[in-house]
Amino acid sequence: MAFILEIDRMKSILRQNVPISEPHRRENDAEHSWHLAVMALLLAEHADEPVDVARVVSMVLIHDIVEIDAGDTFIYDDKAREDQEEREKKAADRLFGMLPADQCGHFRALWEEFEAGVTADARFARAVDRMQPVMLNVATNGLRWRDNKVSADQVVARNRVIGKSSKVLWDFVSGEIARMVREGHLPQSKT
Amino acid sequence: MAFILEIDRMKSILRQNVPISEPHRRENDAEHSWHLAVMALLLAEHADEPVDVARVVSMVLIHDIVEIDAGDTFIYDDKAREDQEEREKKAADRLFGMLPADQCGHFRALWEEFEAGVTADARFARAVDRMQPVMLNVATNGLRWRDNKVSADQVVARNRVIGKSSKVLWDFVSGEIARMVREGHLPQSKT
Repeated sequence: MAFILEIDRMKSILRQNVPISEPHRRENDAEHSWHLAVMALLLAEHADEPVDVARVVSMVLIHDIVEIDAGDTFIYDDKAREDQEEREKKAADRLFGMLPADQCGHFRALWEEFEAGVTADARFARAVDRMQPVMLNVATNGLRWRDNKVSADQVVARNRVIGKSSKVLWDFVSGEIARMVREGHLPQSKT
Repeated sequence: MAFILEIDRMKSILRQNVPISEPHRRENDAEHSWHLAVMALLLAEHADEPVDVARVVSMVLIHDIVEIDAGDTFIYDDKAREDQEEREKKAADRLFGMLPADQCGHFRALWEEFEAGVTADARFARAVDRMQPVMLNVATNGLRWRDNKVSADQVVARNRVIGKSSKVLWDFVSGEIARMVREGHLPQSKT
């Protein structure tokens, strides 16, 4: 129960993206994780290899809990990404450590599997985690990309990993990125 | 994909509760649904009858999507509860109708199962849905109960259904409600 109340703080960890209908405020980790979980339920059939949807959903529901201690690291912020791993490991020790031993082991292992990104389930969970912010940006004509001076080349470089789990989803996402460039919402390269 | 972008609006549907660390703002449906899903993963072992955790998680992730059209109905607002069913059925037609036929059928049926509250999975999903706001209120010493002049008798009447799914969880929750009364945060009856 202490863990359940502690993770309520996910509702205060702000990300770089904005909800489509509330572009004046940033999305938080709880909202993001919910959105990923529903996306996983709906899109799992498009994974190239079969995935265990229930495991993927569990993974995305808890994958950002370490940010309660470690904070959100913006995907295009190379500096903050340097010590991200160490900060997040420490957070995982404390937070998953609040659970009874069996659940601690289970969820810690799921989180590590997500972080490693090797299994089919983890690759699909990571693909959905990359895809969601791209879709929010596309739906707001690249609002947060523009605010952060991000180029299409950067968006493609950071997100092409989606294709390692699902060719169908990456074809769709890369098509949407190209459309953003064509429509003048996103520069092709850093100027 | 249209459905995935449409349900982003869950992030704007405000509930009566507040996040524990941000008592100045109300929690939204996306945050609430994420919290329920994690609670279901962690608490399923306490259900009196065995439940299919993956189905329960799917149920709680989508159970409030109808509120995008129908709005949130406060559990202690008897007037708003009168036409709630009709408003929510219409919303379900439109929203789940955006999905491909097979997924529409699947998620619509899950939502109806949750609403009916008859199966063990639905009873447990509903128990968690009742338990979460109580726990947020307990963690804030009854903040939103006080704001809405709610009594312990009302809280018990609306939430004792938790005991239909899990004796352990209802014993815990009713103990917490009694503690709130004892500590002077919640009046026993309406004055």
